[in-house]
Amino acid sequence: MARVSSLLSFSLTLLIFFHGYTAQQFPNECQLDQLNALEPSHVLKSEAGRIEVWDHHAPQLRCSGVSFTRYVIESKGLYLPSFVNTAKLSFVAQGRGLMGKVIPGCAETFQDSSVFQPRQGRQFEGQGEEGQSQRFHDMHQKVEHIRSGDTIATTPGVAQWFYNDGQQPLVIVSVFDLASHQNQLDRNPRPFYLAGNNPQGQVWLHGREQQPQKNIFSGFGPEVIAQALKIDLQTAQQLQNQDDNRGNIVRVQGPFGVIRPPLRGQRPQEEEEERVGNGLEETICSARSVDNLDDPSRADVYKPQLGYISTLNSYDLPILRFIRLSALRGSIRQNAMVLPQWNANANAVLYVTDGEAQVQIVNDNGDRVFDGQVSQGQLIVVPQGFSVVKRATSDQFRWVEFKTNANAQINTLAGRTSVLRGLPLAVITNGFEISPEEAKRVKFNTLETTLTHSSGPASYGRPRVAAA
Amino acid sequence: MARVSSLLSFSLTLLIFFHGYTAQQFPNECQLDQLNALEPSHVLKSEAGRIEVWDHHAPQLRCSGVSFTRYVIESKGLYLPSFVNTAKLSFVAQGRGLMGKVIPGCAETFQDSSVFQPRQGRQFEGQGEEGQSQRFHDMHQKVEHIRSGDTIATTPGVAQWFYNDGQQPLVIVSVFDLASHQNQLDRNPRPFYLAGNNPQGQVWLHGREQQPQKNIFSGFGPEVIAQALKIDLQTAQQLQNQDDNRGNIVRVQGPFGVIRPPLRGQRPQEEEEERVGNGLEETICSARSVDNLDDPSRADVYKPQLGYISTLNSYDLPILRFIRLSALRGSIRQNAMVLPQWNANANAVLYVTDGEAQVQIVNDNGDRVFDGQVSQGQLIVVPQGFSVVKRATSDQFRWVEFKTNANAQINTLAGRTSVLRGLPLAVITNGFEISPEEAKRVKFNTLETTLTHSSGPASYGRPRVAAA
Amino acid sequence: MARVSSLLSFSLTLLIFFHGYTAQQFPNECQLDQLNALEPSHVLKSEAGRIEVWDHHAPQLRCSGVSFTRYVIESKGLYLPSFVNTAKLSFVAQGRGLMGKVIPGCAETFQDSSVFQPRQGRQFEGQGEEGQSQRFHDMHQKVEHIRSGDTIATTPGVAQWFYNDGQQPLVIVSVFDLASHQNQLDRNPRPFYLAGNNPQGQVWLHGREQQPQKNIFSGFGPEVIAQALKIDLQTAQQLQNQDDNRGNIVRVQGPFGVIRPPLRGQRPQEEEEERVGNGLEETICSARSVDNLDDPSRADVYKPQLGYISTLNSYDLPILRFIRLSALRGSIRQNAMVLPQWNANANAVLYVTDGEAQVQIVNDNGDRVFDGQVSQGQLIVVPQGFSVVKRATSDQFRWVEFKTNANAQINTLAGRTSVLRGLPLAVITNGFEISPEEAKRVKFNTLETTLTHSSGPASYGRPRVAAA
Repeated sequence: MARVSSLLSFSLTLLIFFHGYTAQQFPNECQLDQLNALEPSHVLKSEAGRIEVWDHHAPQLRCSGVSFTRYVIESKGLYLPSFVNTAKLSFVAQGRGLMGKVIPGCAETFQDSSVFQPRQGRQFEGQGEEGQSQRFHDMHQKVEHIRSGDTIATTPGVAQWFYNDGQQPLVIVSVFDLASHQNQLDRNPRPFYLAGNNPQGQVWLHGREQQPQKNIFSGFGPEVIAQALKIDLQTAQQLQNQDDNRGNIVRVQGPFGVIRPPLRGQRPQEEEEERVGNGLEETICSARSVDNLDDPSRADVYKPQLGYISTLNSYDLPILRFIRLSALRGSIRQNAMVLPQWNANANAVLYVTDGEAQVQIVNDNGDRVFDGQVSQGQLIVVPQGFSVVKRATSDQFRWVEFKTNANAQINTLAGRTSVLRGLPLAVITNGFEISPEEAKRVKFNTLETTLTHSSGPASYGRPRVAAA
Repeated sequence: MARVSSLLSFSLTLLIFFHGYTAQQFPNECQLDQLNALEPSHVLKSEAGRIEVWDHHAPQLRCSGVSFTRYVIESKGLYLPSFVNTAKLSFVAQGRGLMGKVIPGCAETFQDSSVFQPRQGRQFEGQGEEGQSQRFHDMHQKVEHIRSGDTIATTPGVAQWFYNDGQQPLVIVSVFDLASHQNQLDRNPRPFYLAGNNPQGQVWLHGREQQPQKNIFSGFGPEVIAQALKIDLQTAQQLQNQDDNRGNIVRVQGPFGVIRPPLRGQRPQEEEEERVGNGLEETICSARSVDNLDDPSRADVYKPQLGYISTLNSYDLPILRFIRLSALRGSIRQNAMVLPQWNANANAVLYVTDGEAQVQIVNDNGDRVFDGQVSQGQLIVVPQGFSVVKRATSDQFRWVEFKTNANAQINTLAGRTSVLRGLPLAVITNGFEISPEEAKRVKFNTLETTLTHSSGPASYGRPRVAAA
Repeated sequence: MARVSSLLSFSLTLLIFFHGYTAQQFPNECQLDQLNALEPSHVLKSEAGRIEVWDHHAPQLRCSGVSFTRYVIESKGLYLPSFVNTAKLSFVAQGRGLMGKVIPGCAETFQDSSVFQPRQGRQFEGQGEEGQSQRFHDMHQKVEHIRSGDTIATTPGVAQWFYNDGQQPLVIVSVFDLASHQNQLDRNPRPFYLAGNNPQGQVWLHGREQQPQKNIFSGFGPEVIAQALKIDLQTAQQLQNQDDNRGNIVRVQGPFGVIRPPLRGQRPQEEEEERVGNGLEETICSARSVDNLDDPSRADVYKPQLGYISTLNSYDLPILRFIRLSALRGSIRQNAMVLPQWNANANAVLYVTDGEAQVQIVNDNGDRVFDGQVSQGQLIVVPQGFSVVKRATSDQFRWVEFKTNANAQINTLAGRTSVLRGLPLAVITNGFEISPEEAKRVKFNTLETTLTHSSGPASYGRPRVAAA
């Protein structure tokens, strides 16, 4: 009986332990005492590429309310059209390709205007191998060239596809804003496939027995599809991709025939202006959704010896006002330091595209919750208010930061526009118990605003939580 | 001891089962593997009608963040003024009546201008039976006629009443947006009664011992009410409706004397323009909040043989921008089909007002989560991104959809403005492994945009979850 | 075995009890059957003052999604710069002082233009005691005088400091909007310290083992700070305040030398207009964020015999549109009554600055959930839709209400702009089963809009929950 009693109290203790004041009753997913550089937790393999998914239940991702995915599309790989329940911001980390989005109600503004000659189509290559498509003019919505450095905004529910027309893999990383009111479902990323499938299922979801994920057509009765599209039942069944095991990135056989504009640089500057249409077309259908962050000539901070930083917010790309995300691209050289700073009104998700850096992050308690190396392909989150300093430890350190605010603001701890410069000397002398002379040095010695030289990371210790 | 151990592990297993990765830690209320056509779960009976409440804890309603209620007001029934903690969008499914809202700070713009003659008042009928009210001019805020098809927007905290002045029951359905930031309480609908009561209590709430729900005056001390209204204690006590058991819909004895405008159609077009006032009056007090969706002459999609669809968004009714809801009214004939589509940026709550239809709904996993009949008086939710197709199976199928976005956008899977039309042929051929000829048929065969003929639901099976 | 079985069922019962339909599965933190006047639950003592924190897990604060703190800064006390993860609205309840905010990217617009003479600086007092600072001109961001009645808006992530330059304690109360989307972390208040520390730790957080809270510099390696600020390692270590045990409010030794404008009243009216700058400076850097609510000459409701009420919303102070909070200041005399009312679109947090009052609050069920005295220094929440009546029971009753909406609207139950006035007589007679004569008295007897005389609280009983 004593045992039973003790078992009982143990059960009760367990209950209290799990319940007493835990995350369930009083959510505190941002009580982050330690951060880690994160790598993908799930890999979905496809015929011509793979989709790498970060576990969005990881504490730092839960705290920031986002999920993160990397798409690796091989040469001639086609990422089949899909859409998600959230706003999405993507960055082309490597390679080049084509991208198409299908926006509801917008016109097919890309039309083949030349008489079609099989195997001679210039803009409209491919498709000709069948012979019967002679004199047929395809038309579809906008197709855009994308290349390394492009940042792409996508609204919820809009289907999007990518095609790698280069030689090296096309690598795209995307952040999904689960916490925004634009996601009207729960806080899980939910891709919907128009074509293709995902034999492994939505492995990133908890609590659902995993089933292979199929495309939308697959869920309807074939006779419904046949009636809706006015096609025969056999074609309708083919749309369901039931026997397809290529996944969601397929290899294109032969040429990929889509109508495409000339590459950027060749195209006339007035491209955006030349469209004439109704209000809808002007505002939504032709809204610019891509900008390139890799051109140092448009950098916001540029120091030849140190590197550059470019930001993309809703002043640059108005659609960001709508999806409430923004981005920052950084590229610094060995031993350059990004001065310590914090995000005033956003969480930041930092993804390393090249090289590596030493990073320190400090939380609300003044504890160093991260002190280590982050390398190419890794991810780290800097939650709102947490301070961060970065120092390149390879020849080049390049990264992209996605921020959960259309106009994310940073505050720096050092430098010409820093918080210390804004404080009166008397606050500094009294706050830190230092002399006016020291305070003046603290306040005025660093003249740079964002980037400075660093003698390199000396003797980094381990994360120092609460070392008094 | 072995038993105790096994019990312990069983307990632990239970704990883990309940805790390991459940909805509590990682909310996933939109993991919907099966939907159902929903009927009301609670009926509150009143003297002259009833209030039918759908259980807002039902998974599909929790996922979409709304609650739903149907009010059935008998002839001469008065739904007493009440307000709620959420934005609300209502649709008059049947009948006609009067509606009044009391907006804080707005003037009593409805005044009886004629000298009052007992029993002869034309616009201001009734009230005369007392005799003493001679020469008395009532004045109150705007009263509007409502009729079948009217869609009514109501902001949080605004008291509203309805009166059925027709012969048949007045049926109103309302959606309450619990998930919006305009609801500053928790995700429960909370009606506050100004008069009347609800002897059954708020049966739709969990976790509170049910008590009869009384009106607001009932909660104050009678002497407080007497002082505030400068009335005697006895009248104050009568305002508390303590001995009243009529519920919240009461039967009006004798004529119902309110100042009312002439019925629509009779009234001059410039009614909205004629008011002159200060900024407040012009913006909030006189803001239009009602529009009728049953007039085919203003339909957005109209096909004489098939039916029509009308939408109401913030471009039509600007107050919807504020309450962030919109509506769609559909009416189709036997064997007409609404082409498969999904909601890009909203959840949709579909309520059937007449007839019945076969509906298929497909979730993010490509599973058919609903495949069945929905009939008059039933409700079904179509969450963001889920695809849906509807086919009328009665002479007439009429429904109303409430959407959780002021400008909800749909994407169609078939038809002239569909996602397939926007995709290049090469994406379709490669995605579905079909020939260019087949792809052309898939893309171009259906010329309609929203409605098409259907040969009727042939051999519907049961929901087919994960049939490979 | 029987025991084990019963233990098992007991465990199961427990599980069901905790799980069946509790707040965890279906959050219902606004199911408030009883409210209490709240006092601070934690006191953080500092060298020159104290910080008093209300437990934000208290049901009424959780329901309204805010946390609340009182700062008591003694004469010559300096509240060191810190920032939080939320929008904040503060009210100076007592005393006077100086305030500085450091807004990222804004210029140091306060510069010492006169040649500096040690110990003779007029505007720029102090600092001179060191002698070496001769000819040195400090410059920093805006410093403002604050005094009793000032209401101060602060955006997330912006560092702010206060200095008490008066004789009596400077008392500031602040509300933190945890539920707003501007807080991108979880629903906990998280102050970040730039200087100083908090030896007691963040005692208001659950689920974290308490550690002393240190400043941000403390979390970085000293060599990082030295490199970033280009100072020596020793000064860098001093910035970490490691051996400092003064807390976050420190006593200033000697004069407090900051550049400050002349006191209000003395300064020219065109102060706001005289700045010329770029768009950023005009919009954000110079945005007005302080307004005084204690000047009866600008009251919204003013009755010499009864008192006055002033409101501050986004029409008065545009920055409130951004932080989505507003405030109300009330001051009434003995036996004046604020007529019963409810907040249509906001939760209200009421803090008593002087005197005491009898308050009754009624919830959605018509139950009186509070009926008692609230006194100086106490807090009570009035959730959205809940009705409240207040009667002064001391010579003066003065309070401030923070509301979770930039344009909070109230609806009154009595008076010239009340909901009863807006209803037609027929609704009142039928709703309350009273005669037209009684209804006319109910509707028209009280001519005041907000304040009226009261014969005082007679026989208040205890909270009367569900007395039928």
